[in-house]
Amino acid sequence: MSIITLTTDYGLKDHFVGALKGKILSEYPEASIIDISHHIDAFNTVEASYIIGASYSSFPKGTVHLIGVDMESNKENQHIVMQWNDHYFIAADNGILSMLSQKIVPQKIVTINIHDRLPSDATDLDVFVKVACHIAKGGLLNVIGKEIKAMKQVTDLQAVAANDGSSIKGYVIYIDHFGNVVTNISKKQFLEIAKGRPYEIVLRTKNIKTILPNYSAIASSDKYPIKYYEGEKLAIFNEAGFLEIAIFRSNPSKVGSANSLLGLNYRDNITIKFV
Amino acid sequence: MSIITLTTDYGLKDHFVGALKGKILSEYPEASIIDISHHIDAFNTVEASYIIGASYSSFPKGTVHLIGVDMESNKENQHIVMQWNDHYFIAADNGILSMLSQKIVPQKIVTINIHDRLPSDATDLDVFVKVACHIAKGGLLNVIGKEIKAMKQVTDLQAVAANDGSSIKGYVIYIDHFGNVVTNISKKQFLEIAKGRPYEIVLRTKNIKTILPNYSAIASSDKYPIKYYEGEKLAIFNEAGFLEIAIFRSNPSKVGSANSLLGLNYRDNITIKFV
Amino acid sequence: MSIITLTTDYGLKDHFVGALKGKILSEYPEASIIDISHHIDAFNTVEASYIIGASYSSFPKGTVHLIGVDMESNKENQHIVMQWNDHYFIAADNGILSMLSQKIVPQKIVTINIHDRLPSDATDLDVFVKVACHIAKGGLLNVIGKEIKAMKQVTDLQAVAANDGSSIKGYVIYIDHFGNVVTNISKKQFLEIAKGRPYEIVLRTKNIKTILPNYSAIASSDKYPIKYYEGEKLAIFNEAGFLEIAIFRSNPSKVGSANSLLGLNYRDNITIKFV
Repeated sequence: MSIITLTTDYGLKDHFVGALKGKILSEYPEASIIDISHHIDAFNTVEASYIIGASYSSFPKGTVHLIGVDMESNKENQHIVMQWNDHYFIAADNGILSMLSQKIVPQKIVTINIHDRLPSDATDLDVFVKVACHIAKGGLLNVIGKEIKAMKQVTDLQAVAANDGSSIKGYVIYIDHFGNVVTNISKKQFLEIAKGRPYEIVLRTKNIKTILPNYSAIASSDKYPIKYYEGEKLAIFNEAGFLEIAIFRSNPSKVGSANSLLGLNYRDNITIKFV
Repeated sequence: MSIITLTTDYGLKDHFVGALKGKILSEYPEASIIDISHHIDAFNTVEASYIIGASYSSFPKGTVHLIGVDMESNKENQHIVMQWNDHYFIAADNGILSMLSQKIVPQKIVTINIHDRLPSDATDLDVFVKVACHIAKGGLLNVIGKEIKAMKQVTDLQAVAANDGSSIKGYVIYIDHFGNVVTNISKKQFLEIAKGRPYEIVLRTKNIKTILPNYSAIASSDKYPIKYYEGEKLAIFNEAGFLEIAIFRSNPSKVGSANSLLGLNYRDNITIKFV
Repeated sequence: MSIITLTTDYGLKDHFVGALKGKILSEYPEASIIDISHHIDAFNTVEASYIIGASYSSFPKGTVHLIGVDMESNKENQHIVMQWNDHYFIAADNGILSMLSQKIVPQKIVTINIHDRLPSDATDLDVFVKVACHIAKGGLLNVIGKEIKAMKQVTDLQAVAANDGSSIKGYVIYIDHFGNVVTNISKKQFLEIAKGRPYEIVLRTKNIKTILPNYSAIASSDKYPIKYYEGEKLAIFNEAGFLEIAIFRSNPSKVGSANSLLGLNYRDNITIKFV
């Protein structure tokens, strides 16, 4: 129980991430600190929630995940810790953790109440560091917070099936480093609604009729080398379990990406039609 | 005494930072290496000095800070180690450390003289690695250098009060990841000169009359949600103790920042008038 | 034998690098994981090969280097491990390792054959993690692969001497963070062909007639301060042993670089003429 991961919108130019690690090591020298991302779009809670959801399970159970996005404690957002799937998540109650835990109920949620026990010039980050080290050392949640039953719910951007089951409409929630477009339509939801029916992912240009098991599966014919397929659009369920639209082996800075070539941007909707 | 921090202008695309860590671990496998920043503007000693000054105290006493900015040893700049506030700083004598230690006298300064003890193809970085590991292992400064009494002084960009005490004029020394503008007017200097008088921070648009205790304090009225205040300009003393001008919750890439919206750039001057 | 280095084109915005580290630590909690670069140009095997070749020897012998560039296992590229110069390299057989080991014969090469021993939903990355941890723990190559005698050869972009020895023609294989231009003409090759003759590096503007021992050597006269030489072009053999064209102390974002000022781009050729 000694890994602490960091997910923030601090960027890597400033000293904030380094200082954060210094504070953690000052409090708990044995901590193993792993960066998940410091390039979350500023104050973007949807992105933060996707990134932490896509990566937390790669870490051992008991890992503490510190989420520094829109984290100032204020009259609307208090600081909370959520124990979920045997991992611990520290964040402001701004929707990040409620989006993350929509399908599986958290084991425990507490509102952090140690602010009074810290020096008067302690920052919000100091509170997170104290709590993260406490949990990483094996400390109990009850010592640093008061149990609550529910978090602030965020219902923005849900993927929903049509009442007659003829389609699923989801949203673009993330554009990755390769310009691939990630939607919030999960493989689980798709399988439940599709029930084996043929389908089309509706795009401005030609629709996609097959969701591939992996990127390389686009090279379907042995007649051509793989290079022949570069630039073709494809769909997969990515390793986080969400529908992703990609351009095979595209370099976003040179030939464009699903994002730029298909005109799919953050928060755009995307539909799968069953036929 | 086993943490070594790194602050450089090497960027993260090249192999330089990775290779530096490999060299440190080859010399001292137990070292705990923490990145402060590798995105210092190329050869910018003012930025390097601000970043290291804003972050060093987050680390435990005895930490070794390796600063790889404008570090080539040449006829003008020799390599030095400064012991200051119980931390160790390794850099070229190019002004970075003299700017850092303007208010508090260093405990010890040595010029590094181990160059003759290294292989003939050893680089400047090899020298820094050797010295950093020596100190991190608990070695004495006298073994690797010759004590000197003073560093090269840099008097560029000082924040100064008017002779009649009617104003303080400082400079923009850093633009952070959020586009917030950091000046070199310290809270300490402000309090000494202000003596409780009302003041105005002079800007091209409407002046700022209040320095807030934190960002969220801009949301002064309970009548409106916090979202209502997004985009408002504000001033705080940041956690490094310097006056900072910010736009509340701005995303630089989307709606602009203090840097872009207020036209405040690196090295611009900024004045606080007392009235 | 516990360091694992990472070189990928994943970038640092997404969660991929963090998740990769989580998987390694889940499998081998004592691993010391060091980033070499995650900003390799997408699918650029030449860049990956240069970066790993320039940095591997900074690490202790026995280090495991995981290379996640163009790594999907497919009908053309299988996964391999190369033991070379007492280091271990895990990559797809896409040319990265054959470019790296052109001059020195590998100690051993195996094709990874553990895919059948992993869960059916294991990704290519899971295979690399399993193999990297196996080797880092001291495991044998024979346990995870079948020995092969040769890798896929890539003969693109070789630096070659003219038949009459009157010149060497190489290529730009990398542009670094400072905009310096790295060619694939090695110091070794240059010395062998030059045999002490005078030479000129042919550029669009004035040719360079001297390869300097280091950047600061451009400041040849004691009459002027170093600042006087800023912006001058120069050539050195860099610490990786390759000919590099640079602009002295240039800041690419402000005054331009060898890349922008001399019009030298990736894959451009460059000639040294002997006179």
